[in-house]
Amino acid sequence: MTDISVRNRLWLMKDGRSYLGEGRIELMKAIIEHGSISAAARSMNMSYKKAWESVDAMNSLSDEPLVTRTTGGSGGGGTIVTKAGQEAISLYEGINQRCNGFLDEELKSLNS
Amino acid sequence: MTDISVRNRLWLMKDGRSYLGEGRIELMKAIIEHGSISAAARSMNMSYKKAWESVDAMNSLSDEPLVTRTTGGSGGGGTIVTKAGQEAISLYEGINQRCNGFLDEELKSLNS
Repeated sequence: MTDISVRNRLWLMKDGRSYLGEGRIELMKAIIEHGSISAAARSMNMSYKKAWESVDAMNSLSDEPLVTRTTGGSGGGGTIVTKAGQEAISLYEGINQRCNGFLDEELKSLNS
Repeated sequence: MTDISVRNRLWLMKDGRSYLGEGRIELMKAIIEHGSISAAARSMNMSYKKAWESVDAMNSLSDEPLVTRTTGGSGGGGTIVTKAGQEAISLYEGINQRCNGFLDEELKSLNS
């Protein structure tokens, strides 16, 4: 069989609950880029409610918050992704990347 | 990080279109079990329309039909999964299983 490709969607569970998936990773990256949950949600065409619930779910499953508000400072505060959040992004993206590499190898042997 | 598990959903594309995923594999297995598209759909709580469209999409992307009707015979005919269809099930399930094995190993190194 030729011309076959594979797509894959993975997510991490913690304590039996959905913890990190593509959407939440994308949301954290958008928070890094935009500096607030509302701007991040808007950039993804996600409702603020859904974004806020996603952040809340991630934070409550994590030992330390992944996303947190800062107050004051020169910019007047905002929302940031913590070091734990950045590590969570790396963790997910690492597994995802290695998994895609694995699947590429599977496909190579299939298409050859 | 402990207590992390991973879930994974993969699907095969052919000629840039969705070809085989969890649902279609399940549908073919239900057709094998029940002998008709309508009974298979019912057993999965899927509409007949969706089941029929799934079969049609798979068949038209495949070099040979994966699911076909038989006519006559002692049972009066029915719907069967062809040899090509059975090979497609094995192909998908093999990749899926090996991918899950790969992810289990990833998780082991994470949780250790």
